Amino acid sequence: MARRKKIYEGKAKILYEGPEPGTIVQYFKDDATAFNAQKKDVIEGKGVLNNRLSEYFMTGLAQIGVPTHFIKRINMREQLCRSCEIIPLEIIVRNYAAGSMSTRLGIEEGTQLPRPIVEYCYKDDALGDPLVTEEYIAAFGWASQQDMDDILSLALRVNDYLSGVMFAVGIKLVDFKIEVGRVYDGDFQRLIVADEISPDSCRLWDMETGQKLDKDVFRRDLGNLADAYTEVARRLGVLPKNASPITKPTLIN
Amino acid sequence: MARRKKIYEGKAKILYEGPEPGTIVQYFKDDATAFNAQKKDVIEGKGVLNNRLSEYFMTGLAQIGVPTHFIKRINMREQLCRSCEIIPLEIIVRNYAAGSMSTRLGIEEGTQLPRPIVEYCYKDDALGDPLVTEEYIAAFGWASQQDMDDILSLALRVNDYLSGVMFAVGIKLVDFKIEVGRVYDGDFQRLIVADEISPDSCRLWDMETGQKLDKDVFRRDLGNLADAYTEVARRLGVLPKNASPITKPTLIN
Ligand SMILES: Nc1ncnc2c1ncn2[C@@H]1O[C@H](COP(=O)(O)OP(=O)(O)O)[C@@H](O)[C@H]1O
Ligand SMILES: Nc1ncnc2c1ncn2[C@@H]1O[C@H](COP(=O)(O)OP(=O)(O)O)[C@@H](O)[C@H]1O
Ligand SMILES: [Mg+2]
Ligand SMILES: [Mg+2]
Repeated sequence: MARRKKIYEGKAKILYEGPEPGTIVQYFKDDATAFNAQKKDVIEGKGVLNNRLSEYFMTGLAQIGVPTHFIKRINMREQLCRSCEIIPLEIIVRNYAAGSMSTRLGIEEGTQLPRPIVEYCYKDDALGDPLVTEEYIAAFGWASQQDMDDILSLALRVNDYLSGVMFAVGIKLVDFKIEVGRVYDGDFQRLIVADEISPDSCRLWDMETGQKLDKDVFRRDLGNLADAYTEVARRLGVLPKNASPITKPTLIN
Repeated sequence: MARRKKIYEGKAKILYEGPEPGTIVQYFKDDATAFNAQKKDVIEGKGVLNNRLSEYFMTGLAQIGVPTHFIKRINMREQLCRSCEIIPLEIIVRNYAAGSMSTRLGIEEGTQLPRPIVEYCYKDDALGDPLVTEEYIAAFGWASQQDMDDILSLALRVNDYLSGVMFAVGIKLVDFKIEVGRVYDGDFQRLIVADEISPDSCRLWDMETGQKLDKDVFRRDLGNLADAYTEVARRLGVLPKNASPITKPTLIN
């Protein structure tokens, strides 16, 4: 088993130092949290599914030329990624009203939006990831105007692509969240899609029945979360061949 | 059976006047042609499949906000569309080298391109649809610079979306062709995706085996074309419930 140095433990993943400079290892935990970690549980198999699904989406995005942090999957729960400076924003793209948007604006869940809406939340658990405008982002220096333009076009490309992927398997992409990070290639810097893309970070509704196949199953106690994620993986042909959980790596400090 | 007035008969479709001003009916024939109609055959069921598949892709594109001419499917072989002034260009998006690009530039078929390449051919059968540059397009007034910008962004959005759709069902989108038309909404004009999106106008390779699932099966005598298209439709869950051929509408003049 690999000996790894832990860099950070978050709500759903652990980051370890990678084998090469500029790389990290993302370890996908089975922990599920919602409402800023007020609700918590361990969902057997979730980490394995999200590791696979994030690999699947990031690989597909790379193929159409959307740069991502994903390098390769290491094992059932770990993937090797390019390390980046995360822009401290949750970048949310919405095609249909749901969740906080429905609550805040009184729009019924499932209402189709006139066009995809991209919004930004400042990534800060203590503050509950508050919605921010571009003015805030520029004023506080979280991202430059050029970064914002790049983030918007990345977000819209991910939306077009993921909408297509989901449409092909009878799923409506209601909304999703990405994180974006900065990497340096010599003197140049550019932005890449980082973190994860998985049913933890998307709202996915079955096109026929409206059944939820995403983290809302957990947030709203609608059934077994792993079953919902397994259904997404099954439809996409992404099922781990051997889904027995592996243990965590041995820590060296 | 509907009585329709024929407007135009092309190689793969017949256009009839639609029931309302500003609409047309596209009738999908079983005729297959290649090499500028030097090679011809009738492929039982092709029209039915392409009618369904074009409906499927156009509907999906509309859902992500890419405007198209598609209004609704009327029956197995006909769909109602918004009539438009076709820009006389075949707009080709290539992700991998194949076909004429491979021949003209000596790049092996299947070579991944550094990024998607959009190219334009002047739509004129007598000339064999020659490749043209943006300079030609502007000089001959086929499209304005604003049109060209809009066409490029439409083409790239269709590419991102279709790449996603195909990826989800294990198919590589090698390249495809669209046509774009101009419509007027009061004083405004805008461009919409017209004609058809189907295996007649795409190159689709099975991701695992490389098997061709598109018109190259016909062009290169690689097997049964209808079987290939049926496979695409099957993977996408788009199979006509009753695939018995319907007759053509009765002409009234
Ligand atoms: N490529 C990357 N380089 C550096 N940090 C990353 C990268 N991808 C994701 N991260 C960060 O790693 C953490 C992933 O763990 P997670 O459990 O999601 O944390 P959190 O609870 O903070 O959301 C997040 O803070 C995310 O911003
Ligand atoms: N919405 C539309 N409005 C007007 N013309 C259209 C529309 N969609 C497609 N067309 C045109 O209709 C014809 C479709 O028939 P097709 O058999 O493909 O013809 P061709 O042999 O000229 O390619 C094409 O010429 C195409 O440009
Ligand atoms: Mg996180
Ligand atoms: Mg044609």
